[in-house]
Amino acid sequence: MFKQDPSSPRFTGISTFFKAPFSTSPETADIGIVGIPYDGGTTNRPGARHGPRAVREASTMVAQESPETGSRPFSDRAIADFGDIVPPEPFDLEPALKQIEDGLHPLHKKGLRLLCVGGDHSITLPVLRSLRRTTTEPLALVHVDAHCDTGTGYMGSRFHHGAPFAVAVEEGLIDPRRAIQIGIRGPMSSVNTWRFSHEQGMKVIQMEEFEELGPRVVANAAKEVAGEHPCYLSFDIDSLDPAFAPGTGTPVIGGLTSREAIRLIRGLSGLKLVGADVVEVLPAYDVAGITALAAATIAFEILCQLSLVA
Amino acid sequence: MFKQDPSSPRFTGISTFFKAPFSTSPETADIGIVGIPYDGGTTNRPGARHGPRAVREASTMVAQESPETGSRPFSDRAIADFGDIVPPEPFDLEPALKQIEDGLHPLHKKGLRLLCVGGDHSITLPVLRSLRRTTTEPLALVHVDAHCDTGTGYMGSRFHHGAPFAVAVEEGLIDPRRAIQIGIRGPMSSVNTWRFSHEQGMKVIQMEEFEELGPRVVANAAKEVAGEHPCYLSFDIDSLDPAFAPGTGTPVIGGLTSREAIRLIRGLSGLKLVGADVVEVLPAYDVAGITALAAATIAFEILCQLSLVA
Amino acid sequence: MFKQDPSSPRFTGISTFFKAPFSTSPETADIGIVGIPYDGGTTNRPGARHGPRAVREASTMVAQESPETGSRPFSDRAIADFGDIVPPEPFDLEPALKQIEDGLHPLHKKGLRLLCVGGDHSITLPVLRSLRRTTTEPLALVHVDAHCDTGTGYMGSRFHHGAPFAVAVEEGLIDPRRAIQIGIRGPMSSVNTWRFSHEQGMKVIQMEEFEELGPRVVANAAKEVAGEHPCYLSFDIDSLDPAFAPGTGTPVIGGLTSREAIRLIRGLSGLKLVGADVVEVLPAYDVAGITALAAATIAFEILCQLSLVA
Amino acid sequence: MFKQDPSSPRFTGISTFFKAPFSTSPETADIGIVGIPYDGGTTNRPGARHGPRAVREASTMVAQESPETGSRPFSDRAIADFGDIVPPEPFDLEPALKQIEDGLHPLHKKGLRLLCVGGDHSITLPVLRSLRRTTTEPLALVHVDAHCDTGTGYMGSRFHHGAPFAVAVEEGLIDPRRAIQIGIRGPMSSVNTWRFSHEQGMKVIQMEEFEELGPRVVANAAKEVAGEHPCYLSFDIDSLDPAFAPGTGTPVIGGLTSREAIRLIRGLSGLKLVGADVVEVLPAYDVAGITALAAATIAFEILCQLSLVA
Amino acid sequence: MFKQDPSSPRFTGISTFFKAPFSTSPETADIGIVGIPYDGGTTNRPGARHGPRAVREASTMVAQESPETGSRPFSDRAIADFGDIVPPEPFDLEPALKQIEDGLHPLHKKGLRLLCVGGDHSITLPVLRSLRRTTTEPLALVHVDAHCDTGTGYMGSRFHHGAPFAVAVEEGLIDPRRAIQIGIRGPMSSVNTWRFSHEQGMKVIQMEEFEELGPRVVANAAKEVAGEHPCYLSFDIDSLDPAFAPGTGTPVIGGLTSREAIRLIRGLSGLKLVGADVVEVLPAYDVAGITALAAATIAFEILCQLSLVA
Amino acid sequence: MFKQDPSSPRFTGISTFFKAPFSTSPETADIGIVGIPYDGGTTNRPGARHGPRAVREASTMVAQESPETGSRPFSDRAIADFGDIVPPEPFDLEPALKQIEDGLHPLHKKGLRLLCVGGDHSITLPVLRSLRRTTTEPLALVHVDAHCDTGTGYMGSRFHHGAPFAVAVEEGLIDPRRAIQIGIRGPMSSVNTWRFSHEQGMKVIQMEEFEELGPRVVANAAKEVAGEHPCYLSFDIDSLDPAFAPGTGTPVIGGLTSREAIRLIRGLSGLKLVGADVVEVLPAYDVAGITALAAATIAFEILCQLSLVA
Repeated sequence: MFKQDPSSPRFTGISTFFKAPFSTSPETADIGIVGIPYDGGTTNRPGARHGPRAVREASTMVAQESPETGSRPFSDRAIADFGDIVPPEPFDLEPALKQIEDGLHPLHKKGLRLLCVGGDHSITLPVLRSLRRTTTEPLALVHVDAHCDTGTGYMGSRFHHGAPFAVAVEEGLIDPRRAIQIGIRGPMSSVNTWRFSHEQGMKVIQMEEFEELGPRVVANAAKEVAGEHPCYLSFDIDSLDPAFAPGTGTPVIGGLTSREAIRLIRGLSGLKLVGADVVEVLPAYDVAGITALAAATIAFEILCQLSLVA
Repeated sequence: MFKQDPSSPRFTGISTFFKAPFSTSPETADIGIVGIPYDGGTTNRPGARHGPRAVREASTMVAQESPETGSRPFSDRAIADFGDIVPPEPFDLEPALKQIEDGLHPLHKKGLRLLCVGGDHSITLPVLRSLRRTTTEPLALVHVDAHCDTGTGYMGSRFHHGAPFAVAVEEGLIDPRRAIQIGIRGPMSSVNTWRFSHEQGMKVIQMEEFEELGPRVVANAAKEVAGEHPCYLSFDIDSLDPAFAPGTGTPVIGGLTSREAIRLIRGLSGLKLVGADVVEVLPAYDVAGITALAAATIAFEILCQLSLVA
Repeated sequence: MFKQDPSSPRFTGISTFFKAPFSTSPETADIGIVGIPYDGGTTNRPGARHGPRAVREASTMVAQESPETGSRPFSDRAIADFGDIVPPEPFDLEPALKQIEDGLHPLHKKGLRLLCVGGDHSITLPVLRSLRRTTTEPLALVHVDAHCDTGTGYMGSRFHHGAPFAVAVEEGLIDPRRAIQIGIRGPMSSVNTWRFSHEQGMKVIQMEEFEELGPRVVANAAKEVAGEHPCYLSFDIDSLDPAFAPGTGTPVIGGLTSREAIRLIRGLSGLKLVGADVVEVLPAYDVAGITALAAATIAFEILCQLSLVA
Repeated sequence: MFKQDPSSPRFTGISTFFKAPFSTSPETADIGIVGIPYDGGTTNRPGARHGPRAVREASTMVAQESPETGSRPFSDRAIADFGDIVPPEPFDLEPALKQIEDGLHPLHKKGLRLLCVGGDHSITLPVLRSLRRTTTEPLALVHVDAHCDTGTGYMGSRFHHGAPFAVAVEEGLIDPRRAIQIGIRGPMSSVNTWRFSHEQGMKVIQMEEFEELGPRVVANAAKEVAGEHPCYLSFDIDSLDPAFAPGTGTPVIGGLTSREAIRLIRGLSGLKLVGADVVEVLPAYDVAGITALAAATIAFEILCQLSLVA
Repeated sequence: MFKQDPSSPRFTGISTFFKAPFSTSPETADIGIVGIPYDGGTTNRPGARHGPRAVREASTMVAQESPETGSRPFSDRAIADFGDIVPPEPFDLEPALKQIEDGLHPLHKKGLRLLCVGGDHSITLPVLRSLRRTTTEPLALVHVDAHCDTGTGYMGSRFHHGAPFAVAVEEGLIDPRRAIQIGIRGPMSSVNTWRFSHEQGMKVIQMEEFEELGPRVVANAAKEVAGEHPCYLSFDIDSLDPAFAPGTGTPVIGGLTSREAIRLIRGLSGLKLVGADVVEVLPAYDVAGITALAAATIAFEILCQLSLVA
Repeated sequence: MFKQDPSSPRFTGISTFFKAPFSTSPETADIGIVGIPYDGGTTNRPGARHGPRAVREASTMVAQESPETGSRPFSDRAIADFGDIVPPEPFDLEPALKQIEDGLHPLHKKGLRLLCVGGDHSITLPVLRSLRRTTTEPLALVHVDAHCDTGTGYMGSRFHHGAPFAVAVEEGLIDPRRAIQIGIRGPMSSVNTWRFSHEQGMKVIQMEEFEELGPRVVANAAKEVAGEHPCYLSFDIDSLDPAFAPGTGTPVIGGLTSREAIRLIRGLSGLKLVGADVVEVLPAYDVAGITALAAATIAFEILCQLSLVA
C-alpha cells in the first residue's frame, strides 16, 4: 500500500483517485475505487479507455469532505485506489468482459464495496456479474443515463455498450421491477427503443418528467423502487447535458445539469448501495477538463453515499 | 438520387444531413434540407459558411426517430438532402443574396418545404423572398434568437446579418403582427435597439420574460400569434446560451438551455409551418462539436414538426 | 487620454475595456476600470494574470447599453480604462499586494469608483485596503463565489487567494455582519471550512439555498444585509458553473448559470456600491472565449449598477 | 454514381474524397478511394475509425492538379469515392478483418486500383489479403511509418495494428526481400523490436539514416528494392513528426517533415503501384485539422503516382 | 499619442503592436504599423479580420531588440502603432478596398514607411495602390507565400485574396520583372496556375527549389531581382508549413520552417524597402497562439529591415 | 516502494514516470526521477507547476528501450520515481527555492543521480545548490535553451526563471568556462542580453550557428567544453521550436526540431553526467500533448545517457 499526504497541494504528487492510498490488498479498505480502462463495446466514438486516468487526475482537484452533507468519506471509511483492472485480451468483446469480471471478483469476494470508473458502459456488465456472485438476490438498480442501454443485438453482437442492462436483466443480475432509469431522452433509432425497459417493468424517468418532478422527487422515487434491497448505482456521464459534459462518446442535448445530478445523488441517502460506477468519460473530447471534473465530483458524491451505508 | 443505409454505424459513410438521401430532383421529396454556406453578411466573427458541413456531420450522430413525441419524420415523409445553394458571386452582398434566392426557388416552386441550414442570418432574407413568391399572403414568423435582427443600416449597408427581419417586414414577406421573437436579450448598442420590432407590432419575448413563462407558455403564445397562417420558423443558434452553443459569431450570455429550446419547438406542434432555418453555427469556435450537435438536434426537432404538418 | 470611436466594428482597434477611453488622469472619469494582472496568491492552477487582457478583448464584443434595465453607463457616466496596476516586485506575495494597493490609491483618493479586473482573488485585499483608506467605516460586502475565501494559513502563508475575506474582516476593511457570500458550495478540504464566515456573522448562501430562493430573493437578502452602507461587490467567476465559465483556476461543478448571475446583479439595484471586482478569469483554460465573455458581460452589468449610484 | 462540380467553392457541398464522384459500381472508375473506418486493432489511443470522414473533409481543401509534377490525376484517370467498407461485426478483431476483406474484394476483382484511407494500421492486412487474391506473386512493399508493425502477439492476440506486416509476410502476401520500411524510430519496448524485419530481409531505413540520405536517395532505394514487381504503398501518418501530424494514436517524436514525405512519394515515380493506403489519422487528437490536411495531401500525391502507372 | 512603458511585464497593459506608442499623427513616426482587419476577399476559411488583434497581442511577447543582427528598431527609429484602417462599407469588395486605400494614403503621403498587418491577402492591393501614388516607378516585389496570388477571376469577381498581384501588375503598381515569389507550392486547381507569373517575367521560387538553394541564396536572388529599386515585401503567413502556422485560411503542407523564414528576411538586408505586410493570420484556427507569435516575430524581423533602410 | 508491471498497456495504471516504481527510499535506486512542480519564478505565462504531472502521463506512452543506441536504462539501472518535491511555502521565491533544495538534498547525498522535471527554469538553481554540496568542484554545464537565462535583476528580484545560470556562476555552482549554451536566439529585450555569458567565458551556440554546425558537431563541442568534469545537463523545452513544443511559457520561433534535440543528446555520450533536468513544460498551452510527449522522450534519451555513465 502506497500513501500520499492528501493535504499536499492538489496538483502535486502521483495521481491516485482523490489522492487515496494505492493498494493491492483487499483487506486494507472498506471501499475500493477501481479503474476499468476498457472501451471495446463502443458503437461510435471510442476512447473511454482513457477515462480512469482523466478522472484520477481531476479527482485530485476535488477536496475530501462535504460541508453540505457533513459527509467525510475519507475519514469515516478506509478508501483505497485499487488501480486498473485491465483485460489482457482486449480485442474480442466477450473474453475481455470475462477477464474484467475475474479481475474484479477477488475484491468483491472480500466484501469491498467498489466504485468502478469506466471505460464505456459495457463494463457495468462484468461488474454486475462479479458482484452478483456475492449476493443472494438480484440487485436493485438506479441508473442515470441519456440512454436506457437495454438494446438488443447490434452489428453482429448481442452485447455492446448500449445493452448491459438488457443482458443484466436476462441473466438475473438485476431485478427489473426494482430498477429505475433516469435522464432518458431521444432522438433514438426507433420510437420503440425503450420497449425492453417498459416491458420488463423498469421505471423509466425521461428528461421531460425529470424536469417536472425535480431531482428530489425523482430520488425519492428511486428509493421507493429499490426499497431495502441491495442496490447498484450506475452513472453514465452522458446523462449530463453536453454543456456540462462534452467529453463523452454519445452526447445527447437536453440533459441534466450538474446541479441536478448532485442533488439527485444526495437524495439517494438511505439506499442500501453495494456498488456503483461512473462511466463513459472520453477525455479526447473533453474541454478544459470539465467532464472529468464533473465525473470526479459525482464520484465523490457517490463515495459520500457509499460511506453512509452501514 | 444517392441513398445510404441509415442504419450503418453513425460515423461511417458520406455525410449527408441525417444520412438522408442526396437528391437534386425536387420531385423526390416532400421535405428538403438545404445548406446555404454563406456568411457575407457577418458583422463580427465570420465562418458560418462552414456551418452546413458541420451540421451535416453532427446530424449523422442524431438518430432518426423521436420516442418522446412519437414522430418518425424519415419514415413518414420523403426527406432528402438537396446539397448546398452556393452564391457564385460571394464578394458583394446583394447579388449573392439574389443568387441564393434564385438557387432556392426551383425547390420552393415545386412545393417542397425546406429546412435551410446557414450560413449567417442574412440567408433568411433570400429564403423568405423565394418562399413568399409561392404564398398569397405575408408569412407568420416564429423567430428564436438572442437578437431581434431588425437592425437598420450598418457600415454603409442597409442589409447584413442583423437586419433580415426589418427588410422582410418592409418587403411584405412577413406580417409583423403575426411575428414573435423569442430569447431576445442585451447588452446592445442602444437601449432603443428593439424599437423597430415593437413599433411594427412584433411580439418580443425577452429572456427574462421567457424564463418566467417557461417554454410551453411561450410556445402557446407563438401559436396564438401565428394562428392558422402559413408560418416560417427561424432558429438562430445564438439563442442558446454560449455554454450550450459556443460555436457562433455573436454569442450573448444568459440564453436558452438546450432543454428549453427542445421544449419550445415541441410546443409549436400545430403551427402551419411552411419552412424553417437553423443559422449561425460557426464551427471554428465550436468545442467538441456541441454546437453542431445542438443545431443538428434542433434541426431534427424541427423536421418532426414539419413532418406533422398536413 | 486616448479615445476610440466605440461604434467602429467591434473586432477592430485597440482593446480597451468596452472600447472606453484609455486614461491615466483620475479627473477624467467618474468610474474607472482597472486591470490587476496578478496571480501570485494562486494555490492551484495559475494564469489569472492574463485575465485583464482577455476580458478587455471580450469586452469589445459587449455592446454599450442595456435595453432590459434602460441603463446607459457609457453615456450617463464618464468611464475610462486606467490600464493595469502591475506589482513591480511580483515574486513575493505581501510586497506585491502592497504595491498593488499603492498603485490603486491615487485613483481611490480622487473619488473614482473602480471596477477591478483580476487576477486571482488575492487582489481584492489590496483593493479593499486602498478603498478603506477613503471610508469612515468598514464596508458592506456582497461576495459571489464558489468559495468563502475566508481560509486560514496555507502552505506557510497567512494569505493567499483563498483568504482575502478573512484578512479583510480582521483588518476591519469589511464589516462581517454586513457581508453576504453567495454561491458557496463544496466539496472542501474540511466540513468546517465555512466556520470563519459563520462565526463572524457573515451571511452564507450556499448553492442549494440559492437554488431554492432564486436570484431575486437572494439579491433582496443582499440589499437587506448591506443596508445603506457603502458596499463592495466582489464577483469570482468560479461562482458560475464550469459549463458557463470553464476558464478559471478552481472550478466547482454545480454553480450559478449566467442567467442567474445577471439577474442577481440586476437585483442589487439600490445598493450603495463604492467599488467592485471581477476575478479569477484564467484564459489558458477558457474555451472559445466564453468565460472571458461571461466576465465581460458581468462587468458590464456591474457598470450599469455603479452608474446608477448617485 | 453521384457527381458534384469540383470547381464549386471548396468548403461547399457533400464531402467526398477530393470532391470526386461517389460510386458503387466498380466499372465507373480506374482508381477507387475507399474509407475503412475501423480501429479495432488499436493498442493505445483509439479513434482512427473517424479518419475517413476527416480526410474526406480535408481533401476538399486540396486542389486537383499538381503543377510541380504535371500530374492531373482527376483528369487523366476516372477516380471515384467508393464510400466506406464497414465491418458489420466490429467487436471481434478477426471476423471484422474478414468482413473488410470481403467488402473490398469485389472492387479489387474488377481491377480497380484502390487507395484505402484508415482506420488503424490493422486494416492493411485485409486490404493485402484481398489484393493478393488478384496477383500471381507476393507484393513488393514500400512502408512509411514510425513503427515496423511487425510485432508478435500482444495481449492475447496474434494480430493488432502493430503487426500487419508480420502476418502479411507469414501469409505470403508480401515478399519481405522486396519490402522497405522507412521512417522507423524508437523508443520501443525492446531493443530487438525490429528483429522480425531484419531477419526476414526487409530493408529498414531508420530516421537517422533517412535524415542522412534524404528523401530522394531513399526513394531510389525503395525503387531498387521493389523493382518491377507489383508494389503496395502503405503510409502511416505517424511517420510524420507530431509537429506535422499530432492527430494520431501512437505519435513518436523525431519523424519526417511533410516536405520530406512529399518528396519521398514524388521520388517513387516509376514504381508499379497496385494499391496504397493512408492510415492512423485520429481526428480527436488533431489540431486545426493539420493532420487530416497532411493525410489528404499525401493521399493526393499518392493518387498522382497511381495515375502515372500504366 | 499614447505611450506605455515597454519594459513593463510583457503580459500587462494595453495591446499595441510591440507595445509601441499608439498614434494618429503621421508626423510622430518614421515607421508605422497598421492593422487592416479585412477579410472580404477570402475564398475559403474567413476570419483573418481578427489577425491584427491577435498579432498585437502576440507581439507584446516579442522583445524589442535583435542580438543576432544588432538591430534595435524601436531605439533607432520612431515607430508607432497607427491603429486599424477599417473599411466602413465591408459588404462589397471593391468599395471596401477603395476605402482601405483612402484610409492609408494620408500616412503614405507623409512619407511614413508602413508595415501593414492583415487581414486576408486582398489588402495588399489597396496598400500598393496607395503607396504607388507616392512613387515615380512601379515597385519591386519580394513576395513570400504558398500561392502566387496571381489568379484570374473567381466566382464572378475579378479580384479576391488569390489575385492581388495579377491586378497589381496590370495596374502598373509593381514591375513584374523586378518581382520574386518565394515558397510557392501545390496542389493547385490547375497545372497552369502559375502561368501569369511566368508570362509576366516574375521569378517564381517553388518550395523544392527553395529547399535546394536555402534561404540565403534565395535572399540574394531576391536582392538581385529587386536591385536598387524601391521594393515592397509581402509576407503571407501560409508560406510557413502548417506545423509552424496552422492558423491560416488556406494552409498548404510542405512549407517553410520559421527558421528559414527568419533567415530569408535577415538575408534581405540591403533591399530598399518602402513598405511591407504580414497577412492571412486566422486566429480561430490558431493553436496555442503559435501562428500569431510567428507572424509577430516575422513582423519584428521586417521592422529590423525597415529600420536599416536609410 | 510501489511497482507496476511496465508491460501492461501503456494507457493503464497509475502514472509514474515511465511506469517506473514509485519510491521514497534513496537506497532503492541508482537514478531517480523527481518532479518539481514549482513555477514561482515565471515572468510571463505561468503553469509549469503542472509540468511533472503532464510529463508523467506522456512518459507512459514512451517505451522502455532504445533500439537506435542499444540503451536499456530500465533494465541496466535501478530507476525510480521519487515523487514531487513541493515547496511548502510557495508564495515567496527565495524560501521556496531553499525548501526545494532541502527536499532534494537527501537524495543527492545518497549518491543518486537525479533527473528533475520542472517546473520553471528557476528550479535548476536549487537542484544545482543541492548537487554542488556533494561535489568537490563547480560543475560543467550543457544547457539547451532558447534563452541564456543569465539575466540580471527583474522586477525587484535578483532571481527568477531567466536568471538561474547567472546566480549559479556567481555562487560557484558551475564553472562558466566549462559551460555551453545551445539553441540561443532572439529577439531579446536588449542586444546585450547575452553579455553575461560571453563575459564569463560560457560558450554560446546561437541557433544560426547550431544550424550550420548540426547537432553532432555541437555535441562534440559540448563534450570538449565539459571534458572529464562532472557535468549537469539542463534542457529547457523552449529550446525546441514552438511547432514541436507549443506548451511552454516563453516560446521563441526558429528553434530546434525534435530530431535535432534527440541527436544532440545522443551525441553527448561520454559526458560525465551527474544530473539533469527538463523544464518549462506548460500543459495549459500544449496541444494534443505533443510538448509533454517531446519532453518525456527527451527525458528518456537523457536517462539513456545517465545510465551509460559508469
